[in-house]
Amino acid sequence: MGNKLHEIGFARLTPLEDALKELIFHVKLTPAEEVYTNDALNRILAENIQSTFDIPPFERSAMDGYALNARDTFGSSPKNPKYVKLVGIIEIGEIKDDLEVKEGEAIRISTGAAIPKGADAVIRIEDTEIDGDTITLYTALVPGKNVSKKGEDIPRGFTILKTGVEIKAEHIALMSSLGCLKVKVHKKPAVSVFATGDELIEVGTPLEPNKIYNSNSPMMSSLVKLYGGHVAREVALKDDKEVLKKELLKASLDSDIVIFTGGTSVGTKDYLPEVLIENGTILTHGVAMRPGSPILIGYLKNGTLVFCLPGTPVAAYVCFLSMTGLALRRMMGCITMDPRIEIHATMERDVPVGSMGYVHHLRVKIEKSEGNYVAIPVKLKGSGIISSLTESNGTVLIQPDQEGLKKGERVPVKLHPI
Amino acid sequence: MGNKLHEIGFARLTPLEDALKELIFHVKLTPAEEVYTNDALNRILAENIQSTFDIPPFERSAMDGYALNARDTFGSSPKNPKYVKLVGIIEIGEIKDDLEVKEGEAIRISTGAAIPKGADAVIRIEDTEIDGDTITLYTALVPGKNVSKKGEDIPRGFTILKTGVEIKAEHIALMSSLGCLKVKVHKKPAVSVFATGDELIEVGTPLEPNKIYNSNSPMMSSLVKLYGGHVAREVALKDDKEVLKKELLKASLDSDIVIFTGGTSVGTKDYLPEVLIENGTILTHGVAMRPGSPILIGYLKNGTLVFCLPGTPVAAYVCFLSMTGLALRRMMGCITMDPRIEIHATMERDVPVGSMGYVHHLRVKIEKSEGNYVAIPVKLKGSGIISSLTESNGTVLIQPDQEGLKKGERVPVKLHPI
Repeated sequence: MGNKLHEIGFARLTPLEDALKELIFHVKLTPAEEVYTNDALNRILAENIQSTFDIPPFERSAMDGYALNARDTFGSSPKNPKYVKLVGIIEIGEIKDDLEVKEGEAIRISTGAAIPKGADAVIRIEDTEIDGDTITLYTALVPGKNVSKKGEDIPRGFTILKTGVEIKAEHIALMSSLGCLKVKVHKKPAVSVFATGDELIEVGTPLEPNKIYNSNSPMMSSLVKLYGGHVAREVALKDDKEVLKKELLKASLDSDIVIFTGGTSVGTKDYLPEVLIENGTILTHGVAMRPGSPILIGYLKNGTLVFCLPGTPVAAYVCFLSMTGLALRRMMGCITMDPRIEIHATMERDVPVGSMGYVHHLRVKIEKSEGNYVAIPVKLKGSGIISSLTESNGTVLIQPDQEGLKKGERVPVKLHPI
Repeated sequence: MGNKLHEIGFARLTPLEDALKELIFHVKLTPAEEVYTNDALNRILAENIQSTFDIPPFERSAMDGYALNARDTFGSSPKNPKYVKLVGIIEIGEIKDDLEVKEGEAIRISTGAAIPKGADAVIRIEDTEIDGDTITLYTALVPGKNVSKKGEDIPRGFTILKTGVEIKAEHIALMSSLGCLKVKVHKKPAVSVFATGDELIEVGTPLEPNKIYNSNSPMMSSLVKLYGGHVAREVALKDDKEVLKKELLKASLDSDIVIFTGGTSVGTKDYLPEVLIENGTILTHGVAMRPGSPILIGYLKNGTLVFCLPGTPVAAYVCFLSMTGLALRRMMGCITMDPRIEIHATMERDVPVGSMGYVHHLRVKIEKSEGNYVAIPVKLKGSGIISSLTESNGTVLIQPDQEGLKKGERVPVKLHPI
């Protein structure tokens, strides 16, 4: 049955894992570019970063207090204090090479200031009292106490960050502390987003009978941004083969990825498979997953990847998260292709699977219960139902060989990207 | 001991929870502004969004197939098929009010197209065969099968999103499907970031002896951006009371929040407490947490919040995540003040606490082990050690009344913000 299905090779569904392997094999890295470290948040490193000096670069105080010889504090306690003499002050950033601490002496020192010659510990100001130049010590210190050693954090020559890392606030701090003004990151892949369908009306214009507002292209553009891509264009197109072809070829000139939503299944006006066959190569048409099985993936002669995702919003969303998004991040050399955080939760109820052989993407709402997470399946009302996404926080995968999930079963949940 | 401590009220440490309550009480919401829905990713809604019509707006097909009367399929199976006659085609977006399906008839229909009069179900094309105008039906359908009811996703007048929600890709899809061109969101709080300290050298200039590169202000700026704020300025300042005062007052003219790092403890050059007393009101100085206890929070006469965070990077980071970031998100009316995801993990080893009475922020690295997460404490080398952040993925809180954590204990872990 369904001879049109056979024509376009859609009847045989590719396992998700195989489709993904094939896709990743065809991903080409974007070139590197240099950006200011301070602008590199959420970019992907395209080089290893090595420390060019020790951090800290000198022995420094970890506390506000007095630098002294630890042996001068030995035996001191609140009931049996010892005494040293204040002989100077060292502020943060000051260089006082002439200042030296001798036995029975101490130098006032601030957190971060260089430890003076002769001193091997810092007593906290809270553990002392001062009267004139006499300092009373109320506690005993071991040598090295409250002193940050040179290179203690990071020794010179150490690889502190590796290529493929997504740069976070703390990485920016680390690179800044090493004096890195600029870093090499992979260029953001340029992505063109097209929603297709004669039924689509642009947001901002009046709704007409039997038409719907285009919600797919804004969603895809947002996902592209979240995943680190650059939206080259976002347009809604009519179901017209010549238009689709023209726009695809135009987009291929400046895009690493082209995403279509709609027009990929076996509807009478689904021209995209033909357009792709005529202008490039099909990698996969039809993947054994639900929702999202009609997905079509291919590439053009210049290497531009083309994703034709189903027009139903939930299916388009799931396809982006399972395939397109991973390719996008792989293009930037990202170590972690899937940026979603995985938590563990207990199934709130049974979820039987109607048809095995598919990876099912079950949308679940996560709730806390007694220090644990519970995964509540969101009522399935079809893949067109956007509220099944907004009501859920994550996805549970049901594998092709699973008959479903049981109440009480522990499952990994991939949280929706944020 | 430590009379300077007493002077500035630092000796009494405020419990973290109390300090946070006091802070949140002084947060004022930023005004709302209208932005295009398509540009609203990660912004915070400042209005409830209601659907102005049913979604779907009409009864439509959820599959590619034939619209027909379900009763014409009753009893059919691959071995005992039934037959109907093809009488027309309805494409997506087409209006064919004259077309009606009678008993024994069917109309070819695409996913998303309007169900014609007389039909109450759609048989999938895969479950049929066609020869001329005769359609063979291989499966039986219940009425309503593969039909998306009008208003099934969202009925008209329903509140689909509430004020205070952080807008994600799926929310943009949902609002677009309702024709929302623009939405009201809270303005991004303007934040001025100042690193203070005579020891600081700007990245991009040569390192001098006993000096360090300024890594705090780039880190704070990145965190401000991650949390949804707008960085008004980012400057490193010398430890000079007049400079600090001048810059603070200048920043207060255009900033909702001013962040200083450094200069808040009891070092000899820690002028910020004085500056804040003379120009505003101190809310809290000294919080019972580690790292981060020297934190100073106050506000100026015009309401600008001032955070003076410790100069050691890890302490500054922890203070931002525990206090400043929450105030920033609260300013935008965010329901979820803390954006960090909490997972549960098993402690890999004992972590005794030296001094009780503090909330300890333990940095941990999360690893997977047999479908579970294990929390491995990152070697503590002092709060100046940035690598304790980059080597960790999250934080475990040890409460003031806890003596520590035990190996094998289940703990909640707040993942670092991404």
